[in-house]
Amino acid sequence: MTNPIDFYFDFSSPYGYFSSSRIDELAAKYGREVVWRPILLGAVFKITGQQPLPTIPLKGSYAKHDLVRSARLFGVPFKVPSRFPIAGQAPSRAFYWLNDKDPVFARKLARALYHAYFAEDRDISSPEITANVAAKLGVDRAELLAALADPAVKERLKTEVDAAIERGVFGSPYVVIDGEPFWGSDRIEQIEKWLATGGW
Amino acid sequence: MTNPIDFYFDFSSPYGYFSSSRIDELAAKYGREVVWRPILLGAVFKITGQQPLPTIPLKGSYAKHDLVRSARLFGVPFKVPSRFPIAGQAPSRAFYWLNDKDPVFARKLARALYHAYFAEDRDISSPEITANVAAKLGVDRAELLAALADPAVKERLKTEVDAAIERGVFGSPYVVIDGEPFWGSDRIEQIEKWLATGGW
Repeated sequence: MTNPIDFYFDFSSPYGYFSSSRIDELAAKYGREVVWRPILLGAVFKITGQQPLPTIPLKGSYAKHDLVRSARLFGVPFKVPSRFPIAGQAPSRAFYWLNDKDPVFARKLARALYHAYFAEDRDISSPEITANVAAKLGVDRAELLAALADPAVKERLKTEVDAAIERGVFGSPYVVIDGEPFWGSDRIEQIEKWLATGGW
Repeated sequence: MTNPIDFYFDFSSPYGYFSSSRIDELAAKYGREVVWRPILLGAVFKITGQQPLPTIPLKGSYAKHDLVRSARLFGVPFKVPSRFPIAGQAPSRAFYWLNDKDPVFARKLARALYHAYFAEDRDISSPEITANVAAKLGVDRAELLAALADPAVKERLKTEVDAAIERGVFGSPYVVIDGEPFWGSDRIEQIEKWLATGGW
């Protein structure tokens, strides 16, 4: 029996989106489950003092170029969203609310939300748009909108983000395998090697 | 006839050190020369507002772990230096001063300086230690020490750093192939693919 892999990501993180398209398949190849854990980089950056990627001089424009080029290489549908970055509260709360009932379905929603934002340029920071994406998968729209405003659901997300920071998570994607942390979509080969060999 | 590749790096950048161990061989495989261009991330960070990696909460401690793990994977001799980061003026000035006479020899010096810092924990920010490393390769120690304090050599480095920033260089390593920029040692596979295919 092997431990599941933790996959931390922010819904506004394009590199998180890239990894989301590969992590489950990669883990399954080595008999591992993946626990998806949306976080809020905004809360993390208050601790680390970092700025959102697009706002950093020089690095921001490089990043936009790198994202488009990397997406083309990976064959992942992608365009730089009109609003970027965005606040991830609505999609993250939707995820955890569903996750408590049905983790497999919650993951399906996460994929749909990521696709809506990074492939269709829909602003999922809006509860209405997050609810539209969820409704298309069969979720009760009114029930979800109520959940997004529910203090218990808000608190649930806050607890997850605090726990992630406590664990040292400072970016997206951030993957933990048996306590071993890997940050960045460009660590996917090292992740595979770690899964295959148990470390080096 | 193909254009040379530009390889920008900071002598205090461990990821630059990792790339320095592979970039020449990789380029040669595709019939390319590499122009080595030391820069000063301190000057770059004044523009971008970034902080040195080891000083960033959470990310700094991850980086130290990632560096040791990556070095082990790549088979590159490495230990986190006692002083990290350091100012790169002395080794960078030594490089450009020699480079104007003999680029091949200057590159040999760059490798020796990187090794001194990241494998032997010698503080190459000291002109004396940079001179010791160079002297071991046959450079006249007194002449080099004089060059390190020469206003023309100082200006030479400043001009190189300004030109790099003008070109958008914001990190180390930063490689430019026919105008196409690649940041980070983890872009080495994309660099190889770009060299092999001319882009995608």
